[in-house]
Amino acid sequence: VHDTVSAMSGPAGNIDAFAEATAVSSVGDEGARHYEAEIHPGWDIGGNANGGYLMAIAGRAMTEAVGRPPLTLTAHYLRPGPAGPCTIDVEVVRSGRRLATARATMTVEGKPTLELLGTFGEQAPDDGPSYQREEPVDVTPFQDCLPMRPAADAGGPGLMDRLACRLQPGDDGFRKGEPTGDPTVRGWFALAAEEPIDAIGLLLAADAFPPPIFNSNIPMAWVPTVELTVHVRGTPAPGPLRVAFRSRFIHDGLLDEEGEIWDSAGVLVAQSRQLSLMPRPT
Amino acid sequence: VHDTVSAMSGPAGNIDAFAEATAVSSVGDEGARHYEAEIHPGWDIGGNANGGYLMAIAGRAMTEAVGRPPLTLTAHYLRPGPAGPCTIDVEVVRSGRRLATARATMTVEGKPTLELLGTFGEQAPDDGPSYQREEPVDVTPFQDCLPMRPAADAGGPGLMDRLACRLQPGDDGFRKGEPTGDPTVRGWFALAAEEPIDAIGLLLAADAFPPPIFNSNIPMAWVPTVELTVHVRGTPAPGPLRVAFRSRFIHDGLLDEEGEIWDSAGVLVAQSRQLSLMPRPT
Repeated sequence: VHDTVSAMSGPAGNIDAFAEATAVSSVGDEGARHYEAEIHPGWDIGGNANGGYLMAIAGRAMTEAVGRPPLTLTAHYLRPGPAGPCTIDVEVVRSGRRLATARATMTVEGKPTLELLGTFGEQAPDDGPSYQREEPVDVTPFQDCLPMRPAADAGGPGLMDRLACRLQPGDDGFRKGEPTGDPTVRGWFALAAEEPIDAIGLLLAADAFPPPIFNSNIPMAWVPTVELTVHVRGTPAPGPLRVAFRSRFIHDGLLDEEGEIWDSAGVLVAQSRQLSLMPRPT
Repeated sequence: VHDTVSAMSGPAGNIDAFAEATAVSSVGDEGARHYEAEIHPGWDIGGNANGGYLMAIAGRAMTEAVGRPPLTLTAHYLRPGPAGPCTIDVEVVRSGRRLATARATMTVEGKPTLELLGTFGEQAPDDGPSYQREEPVDVTPFQDCLPMRPAADAGGPGLMDRLACRLQPGDDGFRKGEPTGDPTVRGWFALAAEEPIDAIGLLLAADAFPPPIFNSNIPMAWVPTVELTVHVRGTPAPGPLRVAFRSRFIHDGLLDEEGEIWDSAGVLVAQSRQLSLMPRPT
């Protein structure tokens, strides 16, 4: 059996660039599924595919395998992911009435590159009890925020050409060589051409912004992610998403980075946290 | 090959109750290892083993398999874990110079019960750059905090007999039927008989306190964990650990719970976050 699983967001074309760039094709049966996909060029930071983008490809394969979108997905990053073909082997560990759990390995150039574990299920709004400790992150209106990649910055990450993200004025200190001293980066996440953002898109959103440590006073050229966990807390209403990422604790060669993603209706739609390595000066 | 792997913390006896209760024995080779262990009675909440305790057993097996302690470990909970024998099958996905990544399945009564994914490595203190957004959690001195299980509460969780935890005065509202309205629970974590707390002990510490949602105004008898991730950020100095757990966002049938664990020297030694189900009223 070899059937092409189309991306979720409808017709092909530039308008569905993300859906196309994360499309997967399946071979296999229900219990242990094998998928093929393509790590597209242009979704990279300096030549290596963005971690959220890789998680989105693998997450789409897992979503297809279990027949429901992710509620919570963890990826461990074993090595960088260059552009080119990849495979995703999904094993469904348990499939229950409300939730299903699956693990997966993404392999690139014959080597395991991402190892993933997730639980999947529809996340429908309900009228049950709720509590919200914090208000949606306070961000300047989209049109008044800074384009993520100024036209002058021709050498910037390829990823930013695929997105329509905006950066909070003031949080751009790191771009000017004047870090704010507060490892926080806020702004708006949007796909190009107003492509809608589903649970798979949230996986990308969770890792699409520059590392907030860039705004600390610790000089840092790159920050390799060891682990990224994304909790999907809702389905985004249309429009760009308000995001805030911050590091809370940096010491002994490791740092955290936590993210909150809010939709245009003020609903928390995703939480993320990652553990990253702080490369030691050589 | 069948060799008994002794627990890490030294001689047998009551003084090492946790090390004994999480001991594992191995059968197998280096690439794919099979472990046997026993889910001990008395580490439960109302008959089902505590989630952090189960993670600690599986985490010890993974630690033995890769030869280094956990840096970041994620468990997905598939079903409750009754006392009795269990097996842990560990697959080492990658073993590098600094880090090793492994996955595991814990099986109880023939059924997959926990599925885990972790990255392992020594976490040694260094003199590199650091940043700390928040001070160590402010908790009343150990001797002035409340015993976790008052003598009168004979029907309390068995787990609390195994620990020497203390609860922050004021955060005990839920025990008196007067929730504080703030889903926060703080206090001290300690093993009984002053057993030292290593990285495996931190896995237990991350899930040993009552769910902070008990202090919200949402009535809730139990809160099944879907996913728990623990980042080990240091090796605890001797003595009880200051802990704080809080829920930040509760809606649509799901809730988060994040934890911070600090040692007696004021070092953040672990961060945790879990996603749990809010059982719907029936």
